[in-house]
Amino acid sequence: MLTFKTRVSYRLCVSRRVSCRAPASSANIGPGFDAFSIGLEEPCLDLTLEYLGDGVGVEMVVEGAYASRVPQPYENLAAVRGLKAYLKRSGIEGRFLMKLNAGIPIAKGLGSSGAEAVAAIVAADTMYGSSLSTSEKIALAASAEPGGHADNVVASLLGGFNIVDTEGDEIHYMNIQPPEELGIVVIVPSFEKESTEKARGIFREGPSLREYAHAVSRASIIAAAMALGRLEHALRLIPQDPYVEVVRANSGLYGPGYDWNKLQEEKRYLIRNYGVALCISGAGPSRLLLYDKSRGGEVLEESVNYLADRLEKYAGGVERVIYTQLSRTGVVVTENL
Amino acid sequence: MLTFKTRVSYRLCVSRRVSCRAPASSANIGPGFDAFSIGLEEPCLDLTLEYLGDGVGVEMVVEGAYASRVPQPYENLAAVRGLKAYLKRSGIEGRFLMKLNAGIPIAKGLGSSGAEAVAAIVAADTMYGSSLSTSEKIALAASAEPGGHADNVVASLLGGFNIVDTEGDEIHYMNIQPPEELGIVVIVPSFEKESTEKARGIFREGPSLREYAHAVSRASIIAAAMALGRLEHALRLIPQDPYVEVVRANSGLYGPGYDWNKLQEEKRYLIRNYGVALCISGAGPSRLLLYDKSRGGEVLEESVNYLADRLEKYAGGVERVIYTQLSRTGVVVTENL
Repeated sequence: MLTFKTRVSYRLCVSRRVSCRAPASSANIGPGFDAFSIGLEEPCLDLTLEYLGDGVGVEMVVEGAYASRVPQPYENLAAVRGLKAYLKRSGIEGRFLMKLNAGIPIAKGLGSSGAEAVAAIVAADTMYGSSLSTSEKIALAASAEPGGHADNVVASLLGGFNIVDTEGDEIHYMNIQPPEELGIVVIVPSFEKESTEKARGIFREGPSLREYAHAVSRASIIAAAMALGRLEHALRLIPQDPYVEVVRANSGLYGPGYDWNKLQEEKRYLIRNYGVALCISGAGPSRLLLYDKSRGGEVLEESVNYLADRLEKYAGGVERVIYTQLSRTGVVVTENL
Repeated sequence: MLTFKTRVSYRLCVSRRVSCRAPASSANIGPGFDAFSIGLEEPCLDLTLEYLGDGVGVEMVVEGAYASRVPQPYENLAAVRGLKAYLKRSGIEGRFLMKLNAGIPIAKGLGSSGAEAVAAIVAADTMYGSSLSTSEKIALAASAEPGGHADNVVASLLGGFNIVDTEGDEIHYMNIQPPEELGIVVIVPSFEKESTEKARGIFREGPSLREYAHAVSRASIIAAAMALGRLEHALRLIPQDPYVEVVRANSGLYGPGYDWNKLQEEKRYLIRNYGVALCISGAGPSRLLLYDKSRGGEVLEESVNYLADRLEKYAGGVERVIYTQLSRTGVVVTENL
């Protein structure tokens, strides 16, 4: 009997350069604290990963509209942490060049770090033959995200409307394609918020049983309405967060001149007069306007103007208004050489 | 020009006797505290309303399997309160005979008072020409229910799987028809629970932010899964109530020998071994087993036997096992003379 001993020589790295575009995301969406997230076609970031050769190390280059706001040192970036997490998990070594085009406003509640982690992991996974499952990508990206939260990560990875539950290592998620008519505008205020971690530190008292029950019922109606294409039902309840936005607004996190009364006044005005749902994107301070595209553009213009005026008055103005739409795909590979 | 003055003489009461059958209901369904409810084909109650003539008054007759457990005086019953609420709202007077066939276990967490209120209001509304909208029926029935909660009421009225949010006078609800494969068994323990009001008095500490977020995400996934027909997804999360069942179990409300550890042990055993989701029906003590009918009957028998043994051991035994199914219609008018 003959036995053959073959030594297969192959390059583990199947691509030399991979680029990804990852959408920004909004978490929470009103009552869905730490549960809901949507992917946003714009803003987005581009990331290119290039294999440089044997050895160990990541060379990081940051450019793009928000490059100057990306915090240093770069080795703490979610993109770098995501790449390292991937390499460690896969037992791969190498020297890499990573270029980040930072197109997502930083620290504005638009999930820039989640998008970075997703882009880096998908780029690396693509480079090495796309072996990760969706769940594995989510878990790796969440581990690279500063708070370890999976909500933004799932939205940047998959797009659409997502519900995410994280219990220890177990991540349950459901990805839903909401109705085509869902329109989105992001309004980014000028002022700098304190860190998301700080935004989490203010809930000393905890929710009441009543707030708990309202959050559960409203979030559930929104989720089912998104699943069933009943946009109006969802829009009516999105502005009605019973607890988290209330506490954060009253702690000044949404603007120095804001409290829950002011924010609620805006929410009521916009939903009653225009059918437009206002909520805070993630931990803020960005505002999200969700609306039914079939109701026409005038309604939207008036809503945006109204809110911009209010932000001018109470929060130091608006940095950027982004007329965007839902990302239906999540991250995409834009180059694979 | 001629004008006619006509005096139309008609009997306001268009039927002399109307009978309704209202399904029992289970509220909460795991993480959906004060939000979720389902209608149950069995058990159910029958109610007959008969117009006796001019005057004012309700004569109440109670019969049926649970007649001896219906609390006296009858004028406090949700059925009588429901009828009176209807008459008051409609500006109608009359003498009535109301016969209740009490087929739903009392104070076992199966929504008997909600079913009573629904049956009485639908019977009266049918008698007087069916002028109430669904929302009006819900609001009236909720006002007649001891706690004023609309969750059980909506399930007895509409059947199916429901999400209900009540804020003052505003009731938002969404009625969903879950997948055909959803099977249900109700296990009614022998022991008497303390009142639902008491079951609400034990939440002194309030939920943590983490429990709040878990309830929101899990309930939302269950709701979306029910809407999209993804039964397995729903069944996996139904046993995972992060807060209300935990506190109530540890307060002894689900049986003198029970705490959350024991209940969780059962939940885990049933979902892992049989894919059967265990939760408490309403404020308890009845247990609800939800399962996928396509997985076969053996799995179910073993699950029921296991749980019956446990209830024998820790809670004084089982009064009744009800192999039922989802009510797809809610209350029905069974006689209209």
